[in-house]
This record gives sequence, C-alpha cells and structure tokens, in this order.
Amino acid sequence: MAVGPERKVSVTPIEGVRLAAIASEIRYSNRLDLVLIEIAEDSTTAGVFTQNAFCAAPVRLAKQRVKASTSRYFLINTGNANAGTGPEGELAAEACCDGLAEISRTSSQQILPFSTGVIGEQLPTDKILVALPALYEALSADAWQSAAQGILTTDTRAKLASASFTANGSQVNISGFAKGSGMIRPNMATMLAYVFTDAQIEKALLEKFLKIAVKNSFNRITVDGDTSTNDCCMLVATGKGAVVITDTVSEAATQFQSELNAVFEQLATDLIRDAEGASKFITIEVNEGASAQECLAVAYTVAESPLVKTAFYAADPNWGRILAAIGRAGLVDLDIEFVTVELGDTLIASKGAVDAAYNESAGQAEMDKDEIRVRINLGRGKSSERVWTSDLSNDYVRINADYRS
Amino acid sequence: MAVGPERKVSVTPIEGVRLAAIASEIRYSNRLDLVLIEIAEDSTTAGVFTQNAFCAAPVRLAKQRVKASTSRYFLINTGNANAGTGPEGELAAEACCDGLAEISRTSSQQILPFSTGVIGEQLPTDKILVALPALYEALSADAWQSAAQGILTTDTRAKLASASFTANGSQVNISGFAKGSGMIRPNMATMLAYVFTDAQIEKALLEKFLKIAVKNSFNRITVDGDTSTNDCCMLVATGKGAVVITDTVSEAATQFQSELNAVFEQLATDLIRDAEGASKFITIEVNEGASAQECLAVAYTVAESPLVKTAFYAADPNWGRILAAIGRAGLVDLDIEFVTVELGDTLIASKGAVDAAYNESAGQAEMDKDEIRVRINLGRGKSSERVWTSDLSNDYVRINADYRS
Repeated sequence: MAVGPERKVSVTPIEGVRLAAIASEIRYSNRLDLVLIEIAEDSTTAGVFTQNAFCAAPVRLAKQRVKASTSRYFLINTGNANAGTGPEGELAAEACCDGLAEISRTSSQQILPFSTGVIGEQLPTDKILVALPALYEALSADAWQSAAQGILTTDTRAKLASASFTANGSQVNISGFAKGSGMIRPNMATMLAYVFTDAQIEKALLEKFLKIAVKNSFNRITVDGDTSTNDCCMLVATGKGAVVITDTVSEAATQFQSELNAVFEQLATDLIRDAEGASKFITIEVNEGASAQECLAVAYTVAESPLVKTAFYAADPNWGRILAAIGRAGLVDLDIEFVTVELGDTLIASKGAVDAAYNESAGQAEMDKDEIRVRINLGRGKSSERVWTSDLSNDYVRINADYRS
Repeated sequence: MAVGPERKVSVTPIEGVRLAAIASEIRYSNRLDLVLIEIAEDSTTAGVFTQNAFCAAPVRLAKQRVKASTSRYFLINTGNANAGTGPEGELAAEACCDGLAEISRTSSQQILPFSTGVIGEQLPTDKILVALPALYEALSADAWQSAAQGILTTDTRAKLASASFTANGSQVNISGFAKGSGMIRPNMATMLAYVFTDAQIEKALLEKFLKIAVKNSFNRITVDGDTSTNDCCMLVATGKGAVVITDTVSEAATQFQSELNAVFEQLATDLIRDAEGASKFITIEVNEGASAQECLAVAYTVAESPLVKTAFYAADPNWGRILAAIGRAGLVDLDIEFVTVELGDTLIASKGAVDAAYNESAGQAEMDKDEIRVRINLGRGKSSERVWTSDLSNDYVRINADYRS
C-alpha cells in the first residue's frame, strides 16, 4: 500500500557518479540488496547521521571517515542493519570496506559503509565480500533506478528526485534517492538518502546547504516516532560541472539551496507516501505559535497520536482526538479560546469546541481524500512549523508484527 | 480481548456510600450508561483531574465544585464525553446536576458531573434528566458491580478492588472501581476512578494520600500515550468507620497509604490488562538512572514505541527495537556500554549488543508469556521507575478505526 500513484522520475545522471546494485542474498533471494556508489576524486561530501545513542556500527564508521578523508565510495547493504552488534559489528563493517578498497585500489578510509534492515544480527560479511567484484564491475553512470531499488527494505517503491537549473550560463544538476518506510522520525538525519550535484562546492559550505535542506524535509516527517539507529543522509558535490558555488548568498547559491530543498522535500514526502501501511498522506501545519519549538511539539503530538492516526485511517473526521492531542502537547498556559483547527479548507473547531458553521459532511469530504492537510492555529504568536505523517492502519501492525526489522 | 482471566472481586461495601446504574440510551440501547454515587454528609472528597488543556466541561465543573463545597453526589455518564463542546457543554453538565439537586434536595454545587465517551458532541441532557428519578430511587449500598459496569466504554470488563485492615482495633475498608481502555496516558490523573473508605480523614490529608497513590498507579500506565480530556480520579472518606486518621506517619496512616496504593495499583493494572486490543501485559522497569525523570523518559519511550509494541504483539524477542527506543529517549551522554536489557530473567543485551550468553529460544520463551517484564539498567545512577503498558495489535487499530470515541 502507498498513497497516490508512483511518480515516474527521469533522473539526470551526475557527472562523477557511478552506481551499481546486485543481489547478494543477505536476507532474501533474488532481491537487489547491495549497492555501490562511486564518486569522483576531488568531490566533497557532507553527511548527517542519526542522533540515536545506539547508532549502528556502519554509522559510527561513516561518521568518522567522512570527517577524516575525502570519500570515494558508499557501500550500502539492506537486510541487516549491523546495529546492536557491538565491536564485532564494527569489524564486519570495516572488513567489507577493506575488501572493496583492495578491488578499487583506494584507501579503506575513503569508503563509507551503510546498512539497513534487521537490528541485532551480525552482518554476513562473507556474502558481501563474494559479491563485491561483480558489483564493482557493474558500476555505471546510469544505474540510478536500480541503485534506488537496491536500498529498499519494507518500502514498496523506489524514491528518486532530480532537479536542474542554470547559473551563470551553465546547468547545475541535482539527483538523488532515499529509502525509509517505518522506524521513521529522523532526528537531524533520515533513514538513508544520497543526493549528488555536479556543482563545485567546498565541504564546509556543502554541510551548510545540507543542514538547511534536511531541516525542512527529513527532519519534519514521522511515521511512528521511532528514530532509527541507522539514519544517514549524504550530499556529494562532484564539481564536474562548470558552476562553482562559494557562498550562501549569491544568486547561484540561493538557487542551489532552493532546488536542493525541493529535491529533499520530494524524497521526504515520498517516504511518507510509502510509509508502512499508509493509506493517507497527512500534512500537519501549526501556525501562530509562541515559538518554533512549541509548534513542533503540537505538530508531532498530533502526528504521532495513535488515536488521531487511526481516525485518519478510518477517514473519520474525529476532530475531538486532534483537540485532545493538542491539549496534551505540554504547552504552558494554552488558552483554547484562541485555538482553531482546519481540515483542508474547512474550519472544524474554534474556541475549544466545534465551529458553529461546521457540518460533518464537509469534514467527511476532506477526510475521504488521500492527501489531507490539518492546519492548527494556536493564536499566541508568530511561529509556524509543518510536519508530514501517515495514518496508522492494520497493515502497519501486520508489517511490523510479521517482519523483524 | 484482555490479558489473563477476569478477577472476581468481592467488594466490601463502604458505609456512607450508595450507588446505582441505569440504561438511559445516551448512545447505545440496553447498556448501563448512567451511574449515581451518593456519599454521606460530612464525608471528605479529594480529586485529581486531567492536565489536558482541552479538559472537558464536566471536568472543569467538578474541579471547581470539589474545591468549593462538600461533595454529596457523583453523576457519571458514558457514551458522550461532553468534551470540546464549549459553553453549551458546561450548561448541559450544570443542567444535569441541577435536575439531580432538585430530586435529592441538595445544592447543585455538591454534585460533581463526570462524562466519558465520544468527544465533540453535545450531551443529550433530556435523556439524562428523564432517567434521574429512577436512578435516584435505585440507590443501594450493594450496587458496586453494576456501578463499575455502568462507567465502562470500550472496556471489556469491570475493574473493582477492595482492601481491609485493622487499625487501633477497628476495621478500615477501602473499595473502588475504575474504567479506561484507550486514550490512556494519564497525567496527574486517570480515566475515571472512584475509591471510597470508611475511615475519617480531613480533606487536605486525604488529598495527600490520593496524590501518593495516584503517582505510582494511574500515573505510571500508558496504552497509547494519549491523555484523555476527561481523566478524573476521586477518593472519598465517609468517616462512618471507627478509625480516624489525622497524620501521615502513624501506624494507621502508613497502613492506610499502603492498602490504598495496593487498591490503586490493582485498578491501574486492570486498566492495562483490559487495554484496547491488548494481548500482553508489559511491565517496563528502568533502574540505575541518574534521575527519576530520565528513567520515566526511557520507560515511556519504550512503552509507547509502536515498533516495540508490535513486536510484543508478535511475541518477537526483537530486542533491537527496545535498544533503538532507549537510544532515542533523549538522555544526554548515554553510554551504551553500561546499558543492559533483561526480558523476564533472561539477559538479552549488554554493552550495546546482544549478550554473549543469550540464546533466542530463551527470549522466545519470555515473549510467549501473557505477562512480560522488561528490565532496563542504565548503569549511570540510583533512580528507578516502572510503568505498565500493553501491546499494539490489529484489534487496537480496528477498535479505534471503528469506534468514534
């Protein structure tokens, strides 16, 4: 199940990036589960990583390495998260990178490992090492679709996005892909996302662009409130294009940030549209808050309330559950007299009660849609925030009771 | 569905308390949905109420009245929460109390209204007013079972508890009942609970006993993290027995607190055993925390993680999800080297990974039980906390997608 039809994305290849995916039988047969991404020498790489204290072995390694060296390869496996695996898990991640280092004649330090899948089982390094030569041979500039396919777990479809613009007479291209369907409430990170540009941008600057793009995309989504141990989001600038970006304020920089944000938002909302068991794509907007923090507190409390989520699944305009969630979000001295709740363009609640002009058929019409916007006005300030979420369905329970992830 | 067999509780009537329940067709036919509790003159009453900013009309009224006057009647309806109903809702609650005041020849100020059920619909006062005379006539000292039955909504069984002890040569009795099955994460309150004693205790002291009893019972349970708009917990001392309690340190007072705690814990755990869709009763113990607050943060993060809850439903010893929840609970500088996780008496994780001695069949045996204890040791302090919770099942989704509550 997923919300809306699959978007067919035509991805512009990024010069300096080659990709490959292979089935190595880490957990399932005949399934692409190992992905290699090669990035050209002199590229710059920025990354954000999970804030979970139990972060996985490959995350610890990738974080160190992206800081210490110029990255040349991303090696990504599914079927096994290599999380909760202790020192043995770190050695396993290193062994895979060492194997690739030998084949590709690079330093192992320049290889970043990423894993996603079941937590708490040791990584089957033998299967990965056996698959590496063929994977390396298969690298091509065009394998974006199969690479995007190869990083999926419970996702039902690949998530890709691509954007181009012209700066100083030359074209800048941005292309990337992501995965994630459950255990989604990123915290300064996401599940797995890889975005590339051919612009030339030095590392410290690239990190700034990444931070802003992540803030309003992957850091504003929640499926189940669970932050993964393996979240990683990588941004690479190959510098193979003609455009050099050296600041954050020039027209090229502004355009780049804007297009990058759009690519990230596309990928983040794709994650929610394909959330485990999702039948609804829900935008929660909170306006007129005293601070961004309290807007987020309200937005996430509503977005993660099991009762609100089951009401969305049932297409029940049960605004009482939304009010109850707002009321327990921990805001100091919230005066419900000033709070309004809109479903789409229908005002449903004001002054702590149902609005006088509201009728249930209007609310029902909004709830019957696949994509629903809830707009909450707190009436006590000027801050706004927005998060995206999905509903809580029988399928979510089935997927997570059946699948050990 | 509920966890374990129903307890058959023999309730000791409390002198000075009479009860009645009637079917008034507020929402469903032939269902006890209106309960009246009469308490003798000169009784003292203490109450704790929901912290939800959108607290319901009857809660606002009950809070004012229990403070201002000596309470004589509790009037409780199900089928309609009278929440999110604005000024009209307050007038409706007052009208019901006024009707009863006339019949019982008391002041309306001495009548406390309570409602539970669907949020956001106006209370059908006409049905309640029509039923009041027969309800009042039916008052009896023995109707504990039907009163406990009459306050239920999605609960599948009544929850009663009773305790007695001897102090200064005389018997003290404590009896009470509660309801609640979903929208359960009380915050200084519970869903609805009414507990009575024949001891003589002045109001301010009674409030102290209540606060302590609530803290480790109704304030340590969660089904779905949703705090209701209608939570209320009332404790009444009729003073009709021979025992007078005038402090918190005498033997009688200590015994009273201890027995009261036991009654409250029994009712609170009954709520969890009968939680919406529950197939497991789960105790989360967090020890060796730097503060009670961080122990609670970890306990509730684990208890409310949809992924942990679905794993319990599937009886899957998926300890990786427990580690992931601990890791995102927001503890500063949590060193996973010192964290251990036990399932029952089986040590499953230590030092951030599966314990060397763990084998899956031992974990599976624990997960197959109806009642499961998770013990998390943080290894960074001396604080402990414990919360009770339930699993997340298909039935939870079905109940909350089908039922507008």
